[in-house]
Amino acid sequence: MHQQGRPRVVIVGAGFGGLWAAAALRTAPVEVELIDRHNYHTFFPLLYQVAAAELAPGDIAHPVRKIIRRQHNASFTLAAVTGIDPTSKTVFTDAGDRPYDYLVLAVGSTTRYFGVAGAAEHSYPLRTLEHAIKLRNRILGAVESAEQLGGTAAKANLTFVIVGGGPTGVEFAGALQELLNGPLRRDHPRLDLGDARVIIVETGDRILSIYPKRLSRYAGRRLRRMGVELRLGTTVASVDADGVQLAAGERLESTTVVWTAGVGGPGALAEWGIATDQAGRAAVLPELNLDGQPDVYVVGDSSQPGGLAAPMVAQNATQQGTLAAKNIVRAIEGRPLEPYRYRDLGNMAVIGRNAAVVHLGGRIAVKGYLAWVMWLSLHLAKLVGFRNRIAAVLSWSGDYLFRDRVARLIMSSPDDSQSN
Amino acid sequence: MHQQGRPRVVIVGAGFGGLWAAAALRTAPVEVELIDRHNYHTFFPLLYQVAAAELAPGDIAHPVRKIIRRQHNASFTLAAVTGIDPTSKTVFTDAGDRPYDYLVLAVGSTTRYFGVAGAAEHSYPLRTLEHAIKLRNRILGAVESAEQLGGTAAKANLTFVIVGGGPTGVEFAGALQELLNGPLRRDHPRLDLGDARVIIVETGDRILSIYPKRLSRYAGRRLRRMGVELRLGTTVASVDADGVQLAAGERLESTTVVWTAGVGGPGALAEWGIATDQAGRAAVLPELNLDGQPDVYVVGDSSQPGGLAAPMVAQNATQQGTLAAKNIVRAIEGRPLEPYRYRDLGNMAVIGRNAAVVHLGGRIAVKGYLAWVMWLSLHLAKLVGFRNRIAAVLSWSGDYLFRDRVARLIMSSPDDSQSN
Repeated sequence: MHQQGRPRVVIVGAGFGGLWAAAALRTAPVEVELIDRHNYHTFFPLLYQVAAAELAPGDIAHPVRKIIRRQHNASFTLAAVTGIDPTSKTVFTDAGDRPYDYLVLAVGSTTRYFGVAGAAEHSYPLRTLEHAIKLRNRILGAVESAEQLGGTAAKANLTFVIVGGGPTGVEFAGALQELLNGPLRRDHPRLDLGDARVIIVETGDRILSIYPKRLSRYAGRRLRRMGVELRLGTTVASVDADGVQLAAGERLESTTVVWTAGVGGPGALAEWGIATDQAGRAAVLPELNLDGQPDVYVVGDSSQPGGLAAPMVAQNATQQGTLAAKNIVRAIEGRPLEPYRYRDLGNMAVIGRNAAVVHLGGRIAVKGYLAWVMWLSLHLAKLVGFRNRIAAVLSWSGDYLFRDRVARLIMSSPDDSQSN
Repeated sequence: MHQQGRPRVVIVGAGFGGLWAAAALRTAPVEVELIDRHNYHTFFPLLYQVAAAELAPGDIAHPVRKIIRRQHNASFTLAAVTGIDPTSKTVFTDAGDRPYDYLVLAVGSTTRYFGVAGAAEHSYPLRTLEHAIKLRNRILGAVESAEQLGGTAAKANLTFVIVGGGPTGVEFAGALQELLNGPLRRDHPRLDLGDARVIIVETGDRILSIYPKRLSRYAGRRLRRMGVELRLGTTVASVDADGVQLAAGERLESTTVVWTAGVGGPGALAEWGIATDQAGRAAVLPELNLDGQPDVYVVGDSSQPGGLAAPMVAQNATQQGTLAAKNIVRAIEGRPLEPYRYRDLGNMAVIGRNAAVVHLGGRIAVKGYLAWVMWLSLHLAKLVGFRNRIAAVLSWSGDYLFRDRVARLIMSSPDDSQSN
């Protein structure tokens, strides 16, 4: 504690960046306070599976207190940060003020709509667990509506437009198509789910543009064979309550538009007086701290170290969180800080049953069944918590063996319940 | 379908009564339409475990479409019923009108507050999955607040008052005490959870009054040994935002008051023009249909067959649902209807680790470890769905072996999310 004279490190955000920073301080002579507005950590890479009713929300969420339980120099505070005062070195939260000697901001990202008219109002983002639950409810509700309405209204309810052909858009499109073709087809024997359409709209000329062209082509082929439609080289002109207008002229009538096209730094950084780049990410020094506020570090999706390409993925957040922690220890010990260097351990995206793409270390490209097994093994190993792993195995086994989904509940929120 | 000339049986409610009625019509020459405002069936007997973070919501919810998938004469409609016209034999819903030849209303129950001032506004009911999620969030949030606030405010946040010493109140009290003493104590090493109080307020002179006195006494002893306080022979005078005023004079400062004391028929029945008794349950004939509307049956918690004591438990609902279905078939075939006779198969309530009470057929009383094993076996067998059973086994094993809870996530609702 502060009173004991050990430096206080306050970490804001219990995502990958924040958790890895806390863990890297485990043996350091500091007191760590981790602050998050949720009491759970979300395993973001599998968020799309919650949205596609493949995993239950609890399968990818893990209580923060349980994760840090064995770390004796760390405590957790459930609170939302409302501001920062660098002069008095204080973090303001809705649970009171917190003094810091070192501050690590790992506050994630927000969805960017690039000024597309109606996009923020009429599309579903997919960046938090709440988003995933809301989108899952929407998809299942749309299919229910389609069965009740019939005709043109049914078609719009069975048309799912996914804006963005990056990993999130591609993985979600594959999972959604399998949900529609399998479990929902069996659940709705009186509905012609052959009418259902899943359409990816991508500005670039190929999906998964961060992968080698060969893997993009494979992913496109697999998706098309599954029935997913691709609109490449096309931007979205506007989104409204009834669908999407493409800049190329095509109109897509749809009641479910999913926006995976843009991610930026959270608006809160600028509100807290931190200089950001045009994508809203904090412009940090190569050592990940702020110019003029060397005790404040920003890591993960919310950070853009000067001149470096730091992709907004989990491995970047964990590497940055770890380096920030190590640099804090170096600062305490009076040693020089080290600059960030992103080590690309590889990228993988799953397209569907037995199909994935894997790109390792910028060199090795794997696709198909082998890539899918690699994806499965890695994600199982990384899912935080034994029970979450078991639950995921069960869900996935059921999905694989019986082509069924276990989590297709339209779970209304506690506050809009019709019951009383 | 109606066009095919087969009688249309509309069943409102996919709880135990509605599902069992549908199942009992599997081979009958009728078309069954099951209507519910949720797309899932809730396994109510384990609701209190969701509230105590022992099971995840999905563990006790199962998609209705999946349950009735193999029943070829049944369909499902996700809709809320808004009214009934017995003259034209039509059910009005927010998804359109539905003609019926026979109607089964299995619309459950509602919480009754007996006019206690502030009870409806300031206490947490525990009757639906949404209630359980909201209560779980409240409990976990109260403990977080206690750690942040300290002092008197902490004490009120660590005081949990449960109004009603029936099975729900007793089972929830035991599960909550174990949650506080085990997982939450480990999660909050800086908080003295010895300050936490769980208090049952019961009007009668003993808890579990439907059980033999011997079992009530055992349950009371076990609860007290676990640390649960009992206030017997005491009514609640009023509930407010800061706690509970007992009629006997005692004041309990508490931010979490749980109301399990009263259950009645749903208000909707009266709105739909159906005669109800003073508890709001439909006054049906012994054959479970309405006097003057012989084609309309009311079953389960929402039904009170004339002169019979029909307890508001799952086995009463399944038995009534089954009889209503059989009487519909008898009516179609021109045979006389049969009156309802409740067969008490037994009651069981779990108090805590290795402790339960079981009362079979009004004769055999079992308590302790053996009763607990009986409880476990029965509930596992009855949990709808293979995956739900596995998930429950995993949760319970983790709970039992590691004295830990897997589901302690404060999952905010999709609509009040702070994220964007």
